[in-house]
Amino acid sequence: MALDKLPRHKSNDYTRDMAAARRTVVETNSGHALHHTGQYSIPPEALPGNIEGFSGIVQVPMGFAGPLLLHGEHAQGEFYVPMATTEGTLVASYSRGMSLTRAAGGITSTVIDDAMQRAPVFVFNDARAARDFGQWVTQHFEQIKAAAETTTLSGKLRDIEQYAASKMRWLRFNMTTGDAAGQNMVSKATHAACQWILAQQPPGLEHFSLAANFDTDKKHSAVNNLHSRGKRVVAEITIPAELFQPIMHCTAEDLMHQRGLSNLGAFMCGSVSNGAHFANGVAAVFLACGQDIANVAESSAGFVYTELKDNGDYYMSVTIPSLIVATYGGGTGLPTQRECLQAMDCYGAGKAYKLAEIIAATVLCGELSLASAIVSNEWVSSHDAYGRNRK
Amino acid sequence: MALDKLPRHKSNDYTRDMAAARRTVVETNSGHALHHTGQYSIPPEALPGNIEGFSGIVQVPMGFAGPLLLHGEHAQGEFYVPMATTEGTLVASYSRGMSLTRAAGGITSTVIDDAMQRAPVFVFNDARAARDFGQWVTQHFEQIKAAAETTTLSGKLRDIEQYAASKMRWLRFNMTTGDAAGQNMVSKATHAACQWILAQQPPGLEHFSLAANFDTDKKHSAVNNLHSRGKRVVAEITIPAELFQPIMHCTAEDLMHQRGLSNLGAFMCGSVSNGAHFANGVAAVFLACGQDIANVAESSAGFVYTELKDNGDYYMSVTIPSLIVATYGGGTGLPTQRECLQAMDCYGAGKAYKLAEIIAATVLCGELSLASAIVSNEWVSSHDAYGRNRK
Amino acid sequence: MALDKLPRHKSNDYTRDMAAARRTVVETNSGHALHHTGQYSIPPEALPGNIEGFSGIVQVPMGFAGPLLLHGEHAQGEFYVPMATTEGTLVASYSRGMSLTRAAGGITSTVIDDAMQRAPVFVFNDARAARDFGQWVTQHFEQIKAAAETTTLSGKLRDIEQYAASKMRWLRFNMTTGDAAGQNMVSKATHAACQWILAQQPPGLEHFSLAANFDTDKKHSAVNNLHSRGKRVVAEITIPAELFQPIMHCTAEDLMHQRGLSNLGAFMCGSVSNGAHFANGVAAVFLACGQDIANVAESSAGFVYTELKDNGDYYMSVTIPSLIVATYGGGTGLPTQRECLQAMDCYGAGKAYKLAEIIAATVLCGELSLASAIVSNEWVSSHDAYGRNRK
Amino acid sequence: MALDKLPRHKSNDYTRDMAAARRTVVETNSGHALHHTGQYSIPPEALPGNIEGFSGIVQVPMGFAGPLLLHGEHAQGEFYVPMATTEGTLVASYSRGMSLTRAAGGITSTVIDDAMQRAPVFVFNDARAARDFGQWVTQHFEQIKAAAETTTLSGKLRDIEQYAASKMRWLRFNMTTGDAAGQNMVSKATHAACQWILAQQPPGLEHFSLAANFDTDKKHSAVNNLHSRGKRVVAEITIPAELFQPIMHCTAEDLMHQRGLSNLGAFMCGSVSNGAHFANGVAAVFLACGQDIANVAESSAGFVYTELKDNGDYYMSVTIPSLIVATYGGGTGLPTQRECLQAMDCYGAGKAYKLAEIIAATVLCGELSLASAIVSNEWVSSHDAYGRNRK
Repeated sequence: MALDKLPRHKSNDYTRDMAAARRTVVETNSGHALHHTGQYSIPPEALPGNIEGFSGIVQVPMGFAGPLLLHGEHAQGEFYVPMATTEGTLVASYSRGMSLTRAAGGITSTVIDDAMQRAPVFVFNDARAARDFGQWVTQHFEQIKAAAETTTLSGKLRDIEQYAASKMRWLRFNMTTGDAAGQNMVSKATHAACQWILAQQPPGLEHFSLAANFDTDKKHSAVNNLHSRGKRVVAEITIPAELFQPIMHCTAEDLMHQRGLSNLGAFMCGSVSNGAHFANGVAAVFLACGQDIANVAESSAGFVYTELKDNGDYYMSVTIPSLIVATYGGGTGLPTQRECLQAMDCYGAGKAYKLAEIIAATVLCGELSLASAIVSNEWVSSHDAYGRNRK
Repeated sequence: MALDKLPRHKSNDYTRDMAAARRTVVETNSGHALHHTGQYSIPPEALPGNIEGFSGIVQVPMGFAGPLLLHGEHAQGEFYVPMATTEGTLVASYSRGMSLTRAAGGITSTVIDDAMQRAPVFVFNDARAARDFGQWVTQHFEQIKAAAETTTLSGKLRDIEQYAASKMRWLRFNMTTGDAAGQNMVSKATHAACQWILAQQPPGLEHFSLAANFDTDKKHSAVNNLHSRGKRVVAEITIPAELFQPIMHCTAEDLMHQRGLSNLGAFMCGSVSNGAHFANGVAAVFLACGQDIANVAESSAGFVYTELKDNGDYYMSVTIPSLIVATYGGGTGLPTQRECLQAMDCYGAGKAYKLAEIIAATVLCGELSLASAIVSNEWVSSHDAYGRNRK
Repeated sequence: MALDKLPRHKSNDYTRDMAAARRTVVETNSGHALHHTGQYSIPPEALPGNIEGFSGIVQVPMGFAGPLLLHGEHAQGEFYVPMATTEGTLVASYSRGMSLTRAAGGITSTVIDDAMQRAPVFVFNDARAARDFGQWVTQHFEQIKAAAETTTLSGKLRDIEQYAASKMRWLRFNMTTGDAAGQNMVSKATHAACQWILAQQPPGLEHFSLAANFDTDKKHSAVNNLHSRGKRVVAEITIPAELFQPIMHCTAEDLMHQRGLSNLGAFMCGSVSNGAHFANGVAAVFLACGQDIANVAESSAGFVYTELKDNGDYYMSVTIPSLIVATYGGGTGLPTQRECLQAMDCYGAGKAYKLAEIIAATVLCGELSLASAIVSNEWVSSHDAYGRNRK
Repeated sequence: MALDKLPRHKSNDYTRDMAAARRTVVETNSGHALHHTGQYSIPPEALPGNIEGFSGIVQVPMGFAGPLLLHGEHAQGEFYVPMATTEGTLVASYSRGMSLTRAAGGITSTVIDDAMQRAPVFVFNDARAARDFGQWVTQHFEQIKAAAETTTLSGKLRDIEQYAASKMRWLRFNMTTGDAAGQNMVSKATHAACQWILAQQPPGLEHFSLAANFDTDKKHSAVNNLHSRGKRVVAEITIPAELFQPIMHCTAEDLMHQRGLSNLGAFMCGSVSNGAHFANGVAAVFLACGQDIANVAESSAGFVYTELKDNGDYYMSVTIPSLIVATYGGGTGLPTQRECLQAMDCYGAGKAYKLAEIIAATVLCGELSLASAIVSNEWVSSHDAYGRNRK
């Protein structure tokens, strides 16, 4: 009855043989073959640091949306945007938005903030000791920064936000992390900084913990909305009135009215986003490009803001406050993921902002397309045509 | 300068040739090869309904965590849990939690609610007409239900929540959707129901929209937290005090104290979860098992509740209020994804609750492991050992 | 050094003498006279049930805003609205809004929901027992209702919402409470209902508590926003474009643009209201009319929704989801408070909806006035003219 | 049918005669006397800046809770705390908490942050211009500060937080305001600072508004929770285990368990406070002491954090992140209100922190008392004894 632990090789666990051995155990237990999961071209020896107990792969279909016309500070020109998904209609819908925005002259995309966090908590005997510690931290920022940066070449401690309640002081370390997403980098650096702090024996310190939900990691929060996590990116465009009807089968006025309803709906139901489906675009590009898909939790929140201009043109923007992207490290170097990044010239050093700009612009296209489909009453019918609803 | 639209075949777009043709265009434009993305064993002809413009695949490494010992109503016994990820430490950490919970006798997991939503909004001349409409809807529930269910064999309209502000009435349709995630099914059914409603010409109706952010789809919200979206699942266990030190290198008291800090941190920073990283487990199983990873947005929120018993034992539970899972439809039928589901006997009809139970239990194991690592100060060192931090 | 307990009379504590005796002790201790607090016309013998240790009064200045022209279902015609405040500009600002809305033909105000809550929590051995209990409650609603209603003549148990997490089940009792605010009535009734439930010995019950923050009482919450607490009221009006400039020195377009900014600001900063200052109007009428001013916590949240009509007219609405009002009981019967209620014919039986309509309309006027002041850049100058800023 | 505007005297509107004249009009219209509202000892000539259209007063009963034993940095020793309320049980309940905390050696109370806000928004052509403006503001802080401080002697611009979305930049001005609450002071100063900024002609500026819901004024918000508005105050105490049973009829373990339930309830229902009823204590002291009771909206939010010590003692703290208090200006100088402040030696210059410490400690006592009543099942019965429920 009791299952065995899966086999593990002490010195060389990342081989086709070991993956097969593990699959065999699972197959034997379940009575179902693991055939396709064993079909892969990626080299197992590339996988340490990405997974433990490697046993095969998942093959996720990928398509390109676009071309997307973009005027970023880093991403300039046209792009085919790789999206990996199993949800019908998705690529087609984003492509439709890209058509309209391209016809309108392209999207402007801008990274307006950038930092990754870890937020240790220091617990004191009482609130006064905690408050005094807060002042001490401000005064000793340079030493803390030096201690943090001993652990990393590319990470820089930008500043430390402080949050206080009861006898606690949370320090929210904000680091720039180059082209890595940087969660582990910041953990290490913050850990080192805290070791230095602890060595100074802050008066009245009762307890310390490297994390207690104030980062906030792998979940949306108000603090992330306000102060960003990863990149804060805006994509925006002004679309001439006359373009809507031919491509979207609705008017800018229709969209503006729908925006009012969507704003109120999102506000009243306590949504983390007043957009329709940021998560779809974020998740599909994340998956294609080797990003951490658990970060869809944070990166799917955001804001849509629109204006109907006096001449009938439609200004539309999306803001993603916590877009966590990397073009180096994590899953970016795996073969298929790297290829998807390279298809946009987004792999490696100096490319993280470019990728962030592309994702934000992609999200805008998806918002535009879905909102138009709802307004023009084409939403259900488009899913009938492309999605699993089809007869 | 201007890029071409990617080639599309009018009658037969889902072929290896068309995928290759599209890759070629992208390769030519970018100057980078798309070699690995072209290496796949899945048949393109299976992909209509899952993606448009199919161009290749993303290969994501997959490993099995476990064995997980579970006493669900549907999932009973031990399971190897497939997790697809590119984040080092993740599988190892979940496996560690599975070791402890297995030693403690296993996890109890229960689906306590289940419905999928679509929430159209009806706008009236004034608030009174909207209020009257709300009463009319209640009185005509059976007809509305009949109209909705004309579009689906497996979907059933359970009830309609009503939300009101200004001159608007949002109707939040709750449907059970069998083993499908059901978003499209519910869209179609709600659309049909609304067509019937509109045909009755509700007095004072000014405007109608099939969606305005009250579902809430692809984003977390308070309404989802309160009233669920997909499955609401609880996993729980009482762990004997003496098991902590050997496996987790900490005590139940340590964890209970950390929980207090994490609760306050999450509450003060406005987090959608008081857990540490639900999203990691949810995303990795979702990806392996063909779920819609955009739903990580909703499914990553949740609650941890713990008690320190008089005898020192530790009661721990996780509640996932909006776990959106399918064992049929969407990406579940694709070859590698289906194999992963089959490895747990979770593919096809009658398996959705079982999968939900397994995921919730997996999430509990991850919470246990990470909290212990933080408390025992092993968090950074474990990432050094397994993750991309390693030298 | 140690202060004495204040004197208390065993049999007759509500007298001018006892109030004076207590003031004397405080005066002696502080060295400051309590002269004005001893000047009152209200009879101490009326105060049992309103305060313990009665020692005098606070005199709060009161003025009338208006006339307010209103087309409620209960409040019809014109009203002078009593407002008690110490904040300059407030009465003048609300009166200005009343001028414009009166010129525009008056406000429509509608109560669209009504219930008061208490939310006991039942803790079980595990989530399954809690889920089963939930079903049992649904099946035994009539008995629970009967038990609840044994304690009250005017209170009726409308329904019980259920909320679940971990091994807990919160039952949110919704009662209509006639013209009383009803918190204590609902506490008593819920207590009785729970005693009946407990007597049935629900299987697996581990613990019970009459309240655990799910009511939510004396604080704002998402659940109140969604499901109301007290009255849910809408006030709305369509204002002809040409009226704005003469009275408000701005245009409807200006206000519509400002609304877009205010919506985004409120959403991003996690505000409980997208209005400007509901609390001012609510608090001032509450205080004048003997309402519980602690309920400003709940009653100050709300939604503003506006539309710019094709002809340039401006539709504006405010929705107060949790307006807790009484025209009977609590402080409503005290002499000055009763007089203020009577000035609007709002005292006693059958008047609670009328008062709710008037307050919502008043809040609308305040929103209109302040938004216009901000837009026309008159905000600071008006406070210079009327407020404590004045030279 | 149409009501007249109430009489106003052009040069001298703050007289007993004018108040009586207005009451007469209202009486005539309503047919009800305004007798008691005309009974007041406060001099009308003191009221300009506090109210327009002064017509009389509301008399609110006031009692003293306590004595409260406090070890603040400003409030040291014992205090009778004035509370104005019409809600039975309230003063008795707070007094009970004061008894326990006094027996336990007194409460420690600490102001840990202090600033008042105004948050203008600057709208630009695009997000890049908005981002550049943000940097320009940082570089020109000294000039902006100088411009702001031209309008005030006591207000100091501490710092400017920046928040960004779309093409907008909100500047959240944080000022210290001495012993005034300071909303108007900060409005004036921010207005002056913005005039200076506008005179520099920021490139790409499209629009400016002095406020758009980011302050956040007269409403709760996440940004207030995180960054305070007014005073951020903590009150805390460690209570010996043996004191609970005699005074509270429960144990520390009971309270700790209830805290766990209350934390989860508050978190799941999206409450702004995990406390039971901060608003009651805040509102009653605010009203007695001439504070702006509309600020109950912000000041009623907060956090309770507790620990059960190894020896069974109970650490309890309350944190009020946005307590808006004044001991100068506003309603503090009115006769009865000033007397209440003086009873605690809290009137005038240098007393605002002292008042904040007392209010936080009072709130703690109320939380302790109500939580104990719930746990010991005395809640309903105490309202029967003291409140309007009584037979």
